[in-house]
Formats: sequence, C-alpha cells, structure tokens
Amino acid sequence: MQVWKDYESQHKDRFLEELLELLRIPSISARTEHKEDMIICAEAVKQRLLEAGADSVTIYPTEGHPVVYGEKIIDKNKPTVLVYGHYDVQPADPLDLWKSGPFEPVIKDGKIYARGSCDDKGQFYMHVKALETMTRTGTLPGNIKFIIEGEEEVGSPNLASFVKANKELLKADVILISDTSMLSMDTPSIDIGVRGLSYIELEVTGPNRDLHSGVYGGAVANPITMLAKMIAACHDENNHITIPGFYDDVVESTPEERAKMAKAPFSEEEYKKDLGINHLWGETGYTTNERTGIRPTLEVNGIWGGYTGEGAKTVLPAKAFAKISCRLVPNQSSVKITEKILAYFKKMAPEGVTVKAEEHHGGEPYMTPIDSDAYRAAAKAIETTFGKDPIPVRGGGSIPICSLFEKELGLKIVFMGFGLDSDNLHSPNEKYDVFNFYKGIETIPYFHQFFAASFSK
Amino acid sequence: MQVWKDYESQHKDRFLEELLELLRIPSISARTEHKEDMIICAEAVKQRLLEAGADSVTIYPTEGHPVVYGEKIIDKNKPTVLVYGHYDVQPADPLDLWKSGPFEPVIKDGKIYARGSCDDKGQFYMHVKALETMTRTGTLPGNIKFIIEGEEEVGSPNLASFVKANKELLKADVILISDTSMLSMDTPSIDIGVRGLSYIELEVTGPNRDLHSGVYGGAVANPITMLAKMIAACHDENNHITIPGFYDDVVESTPEERAKMAKAPFSEEEYKKDLGINHLWGETGYTTNERTGIRPTLEVNGIWGGYTGEGAKTVLPAKAFAKISCRLVPNQSSVKITEKILAYFKKMAPEGVTVKAEEHHGGEPYMTPIDSDAYRAAAKAIETTFGKDPIPVRGGGSIPICSLFEKELGLKIVFMGFGLDSDNLHSPNEKYDVFNFYKGIETIPYFHQFFAASFSK
Repeated sequence: MQVWKDYESQHKDRFLEELLELLRIPSISARTEHKEDMIICAEAVKQRLLEAGADSVTIYPTEGHPVVYGEKIIDKNKPTVLVYGHYDVQPADPLDLWKSGPFEPVIKDGKIYARGSCDDKGQFYMHVKALETMTRTGTLPGNIKFIIEGEEEVGSPNLASFVKANKELLKADVILISDTSMLSMDTPSIDIGVRGLSYIELEVTGPNRDLHSGVYGGAVANPITMLAKMIAACHDENNHITIPGFYDDVVESTPEERAKMAKAPFSEEEYKKDLGINHLWGETGYTTNERTGIRPTLEVNGIWGGYTGEGAKTVLPAKAFAKISCRLVPNQSSVKITEKILAYFKKMAPEGVTVKAEEHHGGEPYMTPIDSDAYRAAAKAIETTFGKDPIPVRGGGSIPICSLFEKELGLKIVFMGFGLDSDNLHSPNEKYDVFNFYKGIETIPYFHQFFAASFSK
Repeated sequence: MQVWKDYESQHKDRFLEELLELLRIPSISARTEHKEDMIICAEAVKQRLLEAGADSVTIYPTEGHPVVYGEKIIDKNKPTVLVYGHYDVQPADPLDLWKSGPFEPVIKDGKIYARGSCDDKGQFYMHVKALETMTRTGTLPGNIKFIIEGEEEVGSPNLASFVKANKELLKADVILISDTSMLSMDTPSIDIGVRGLSYIELEVTGPNRDLHSGVYGGAVANPITMLAKMIAACHDENNHITIPGFYDDVVESTPEERAKMAKAPFSEEEYKKDLGINHLWGETGYTTNERTGIRPTLEVNGIWGGYTGEGAKTVLPAKAFAKISCRLVPNQSSVKITEKILAYFKKMAPEGVTVKAEEHHGGEPYMTPIDSDAYRAAAKAIETTFGKDPIPVRGGGSIPICSLFEKELGLKIVFMGFGLDSDNLHSPNEKYDVFNFYKGIETIPYFHQFFAASFSK
C-alpha cells in the first residue's frame, strides 16, 4: 500500500538508527558477565514497542534472562498474530577476526555489520517497525502480540515454563517468526521447517595433574588423544553418524519430495567459492541441500586442552574438552538423542581416562504445513513485494521453542525470514543487508493484511 | 668434608632465600611479553655467580634470550668442569590450578612451590652455591665454567651458534648438568640418557570463516573433526606410532639391557595411585619404564578450535590447531623425524581442509657412557652423601643441547639430577624439596673432588 511505502520512506533513517542503538547492547545470553546488559536490552525492547504503538508491554523475569511481552489489541474478534523473536545474541569470539567491533555497528556497502544484526535483532525489529507503520497509518488489520525472549541462543531453557504459565496471555491464531533466511533476494523462499538440536559438552580426564610429556608420555593415556579418538569414531567412512539408534526415528523424505527440493537453484561451484573450499563433505548419498536440510548432523563446535599459547610446552594434560551438537530432523526427539549421545561417549571412554558428558539445552525439530491460511498469507505477502512466488525450503538451523509453541498453544508457526546464509550468523562479521531490513518492514504489513482477510472470508 | 657441611649449615637459610628471589622472576622464554624479565633474570644470575666467587661473568646477547657465561679458573693445568643449566622456565598455565602464585614461591611441608623451583633454577643454583662453598672454604679442586642459558624450554634455538662461536671459551673436560631426576631419595639414580624431541604445530583450515553449524553443518568438512581424525590415526591398535619410517633408526635394547632395567624398583600400583588413574596406557610389548625411557613417543601437548567459552555456541569453525611432540631415542634424528611428521600430516589432510604443519625447535637424543671417570666421580659423590650406589637409568625427558655439546666441544655429559618425577615439571604446582636442594649442594663438591682426583692419578 502506498501509505506504508510513504511512511517507511519518511522514517527509514530513524528506523535504521534505532536498530543500530539496539545492536550496541552486548546482550550475550551465554555469558554471565552480560547479565546486566540483558536487562538493559530488555528495557530497550520494551521502550521501542511502546513507542511503536503497543498498548502495554511487560518485562517478565525468569530464572534466566527476562522475556519481553507486548501487545496491540484493536478488536478481540479480529485475528491475532503472535510475533516471536529474541533479543539475545551469540558470543562474539573469536574477536580478532572481526573487522569492526561486534557491538559497534557500522554500515559498509549497504550492510549492517554487528553481532545480532541478522540474528535476531535486525529481524525482530522489522516487526516493531511494521507495527509502527500500521498503527501510525491507521491500517492495522488485526491484533499483534510480541514475545521477545533473551535465551534463544542458549536453548530457551526458561521459555517453556513462561509459556505454560501464560497460555491465555499468548492466545493467538498464528505465530510469526523472522529468524531464518531466504535463498537470495532474487529467489525468495520460506522455511517450512527447522531442525532440532542436541548439545553436549565432554570433559575427558586422565591423570590428576598436568604431566611432563617427556617423563610420563607414552605410559599414560593422553586425554586429548583419547578425545580425538572418540570424535573420530562419531562418523563412519560414509560420514554416517555412528551413535547407536541415532537414525531410528528419522522420517526419510520421499523421492518426490527430494526431486522437488532439488529444483531449488543451487550452484555447488558458487557455494564452494563463497566458502573458499575445494571439496564438499558429508553423508554419502545425499546432496548438499539435503545434508543441511533433511538429514541430521553431528558437529564439534569447540575443542580445547593442554597448552594453547605461544611457542612450545611439553605437557601431557590432565583434561581435554569438547562441545558437540547434533541437528535433528522429524521425528527425532532431542531428549532421546541427547540421552543416546551421552551414553555413547560414556560407553566408549577409552581405558585410562574418564568421561563426563553433560547436556546443554536442546530443542525439537519442527515442520510447518504449507496449506494453511497463514502460510498462504506469507507467500502472498512476499510475492507482492518481491514479485516472485517464494519457494518452500527446509532450513538447517534450529529454533528450540517451535515444538513447544505448537504443543502448549496449539498454534502453527510461519517462518518469514529475510536473512541470507552468507550473513555470518554465529561467526565474526555478522551482517544484515540494509535492503533486507527495509524489505522486511515493507513485506510484514502485507502478511497481516492477507492473514486478517483470510479470516473474514 | 666437614668444612663443606659446616659452611652449608651456617648459610643454608640465605641459600634458600636467594633461590626464592630468583624464582620470583617470571622468566618464561616462550612468551614475548616476558622478554624484559629474561634480561632481569640473566642479570640476577650474573650477580649471584660473581658473589659466589666467579672471576668473571658475561651476559652474551643472542637473537633470542641472553646466555650467561661465568668462570672460576684456579689453574689452567687442572681439570675443568663446564656446568650447564637454564634460567628460563615453562609457561605457568593453567593458572587456575596453582594453589599459590607460580612466581610467588612458598615453602610448604618442606617443599618449594614455584615455577622453575626444580626445572631448572633450583637445580642450577645448587651449583652456584657449591661454587661458593668451595671458594669460601678454599677447597676448589679444579676450574669451573658456567653456561646458563635462557632458551632451554623453547628448544635452545640460539645456543648452537653461541657454542660454535665460543669453543675456546667453553673448553673443558666434562659437562655437568643437573636438570633431571632421581628415582627417589631412597633409591638414588643417575640418568644415562635423555630423549630427543621433535615438536610441531598443526593448523587445519576448512571454510574461510566460522560458519553457523545449523546452516552449513553436515555439508562442509569441520576442521576440528578432521584434526581429531588425524590425531586418532597417529597410533595403531597396539599404540605403535603410524608415521611411516618413524621407527627405522631406533636402536632396540637387548634382552640383557631390558632385564637390567627391569631391576629398578617400580610399583605399578604406586605409580597409578600417584597419578589417580586406573589403567596404564602405551605401546604393546613394553613396560612402563621402557615406554618412558627407551621407546620413542608421540603426544598431543595442546589442542584448540571453535568455541571454548561458557555455554553453547553452534559454530562450525574455520580453523583448528594442535601442538604435537615426539620423544626420540638413539639413533633417531630429530631433523629427519620432524620432516617425516610434517610430511605425514600434510599427506593425510582429509579432503575439504588444508593443513599447515610447522616445526618448533627440537633436539637430538643423547646417551652418556657409564665407564668414564666423570660418571664414576658422579656415582661416587652420590654414594658418599646418600650412602647408596646410584642406579643408572634412562630418563624420558629431553635436553636439546646435549648432542650439540658433544659434537661441537667433544665433551661427554654427566647428568646429576636431584629432582623427582613427582615435582610437577611443566605442570601447575611445580615443586622442589628443600631437602633435595641442600642434598645437591652437599653432593656437588664431592663430584669436583673425585673428578679432579681422577686426573692426578
């Protein structure tokens, strides 16, 4: 609608400036030293929602970081969209690889560089600005509720109890999330699923102290070597995961589904060039898009042990550590898989070391139907602003809270993500294109319009 | 001699206080930020040698850390003992495992806790105090030269050129080193060999940036996983090292030699209890003492990559790193083995990653004869103060400079070490028993006496 376009173009500089303000808050949920920043960020989100036209906004404390809830109710008989997002961000390490400070956002070549620019501050903030656009232009077609949490990047450990305790408050007709990506701005797409997550940490202990590798080496099991053996054993020669029962509940895609997926534009050469690698890797028998979309995976996210400083130190360390996570697909259960992984590592601990395996928070895989009014409203909104019908794709990432929302609130989720795979999520130099930010703000009101219209039919 | 005993007991508190002073200097050779401390420490060594009666002491700059040379020449026709030691120490990490500051020495239960207390400040300083004892009591039976370097813990990269350029200065009849250990104070022993060292660092690179493990995981080779596979492949199921040609030049000990070694007192149960482990590890077909003495080994000294902080981060990292070292035995060549290791890792780099393998400084293995006058003098000195004939044993550690000394100066080495395997060398809470420190100062003058006597026969 022209009125939205006009409003956006009058206020676009301010919209961007407000986002940059938000990006300056180092709201890293994983680090206890940022606890205060989390509260500051939650307060900022609350203020911005109120300024954008929300009737009321409340910060709900949890056992971890607070949840921000806000709403704009225009008519109880009209449909309600619950927007979910998160104001927390991933840690910024390794810091030395950032070209500018992770919490000192800069705009370069039309891209906003900052931790959280895409994941998820830049994306949830489009919804705040879309709310403002609709309230200020008097075009809001239904009710909007916002639940913006602060623990998505650590597995949303406290959101479940919040949702369970506030079912009436969160009552809605659909959940709308912008925390995923599109194939490209030329090939708009909608994620129809997110993978589940199991995340564990291993601590391998050998001798009761660090030893001189000359005096004890060769006679005492080295925890690093033993950890390496365990990690090496996690994939077989076809890069299948070797954890017993790991694939038991995997729903295999049909040949028809796989054929449909294969039609999404994808250039292996471009992909390799973008990543600077000569060879792809992965499970035998599946394409790259299948490996990242419909198949479960196991990746080592971090490893450390012994001397990691400058120069040489001849130590046989007492301990070695690893962080390992699995992406899960329907109908794998994060709870069950985490149990299997923990048991696997404990069982295969080589003689001479002991293995402590503990879980971080995980999440269940989730698939969304493509024949719903909500999905159709999203597709039509994107078609309106992009001029192209979006392709449904299965994304590789995880949003742990999805299956909980469905179970507790009985609601389906629509993923309307405007990021790109190349946005360096969870990596140094995370970015979000200014173009995508504005495109999102332009597209979201159409979703509300079409979704509300489907109700009055 | 009573005169030595009397002098030592009069001055013992000062001897110890002086050592603690030296231990307060954080002379970590591996870390460039301690360059200034290295100079401070070299100056302190110089002062202490002069105070102990050396005629002249010079600090020789090198391309790295300086060498301290001092001498006490009483008569050019008398025999000369060249004492080698090092004033540099290993890095102190992991700092959080120290019960007191590594450079804030404390004495507890008769033990001096500090980095370098045993390796090697506490041990070379016994020679400084033995020099003082003999000069002050007018009993020095020959000449003594001191070469105390600052780069032993990083492989002595600049000592070779110093030795080559100063052959006349360093001219002597034997080299005496206290940088090894004894089986126990009840079972005195003399090391008759040190192992060689090859030390390399690996950098495994996958994609050109850290990636989101949900978006790219399963499709891109993970450098941590690939590094783990490479490390796991370094030992076969019998814990033999798999590097092609690794054992080619190993001199196998004869059954007689092994039978003699097996007579050294050793309790597997005590050893495991001390280390807090239930199972020993190592090369099939060899005993624990053989594994650490006569067999070459490969140990991972450090590993790191990806996210190593608190909590969970779902990253597929761009890089992973490891520090790996091998202990070598006669007649393995450090130069040749290092080449083989570097080639091995480069060759076995899995598809999808590249491997950069670089060497740190190594050292050649060294064996000392037990039928020399010098060895006999050492054995007799120990017998005099311990009341027991010392057992000859092959130590597991490395002193990279030994083979160079022999080659360039044509001198044999005698290892008169007063440390214990349990001294936590290279580990947190390094210690040296006050008893051993004094016992060394008591024993060393006897070595000089017996060695000089063997010349006048």
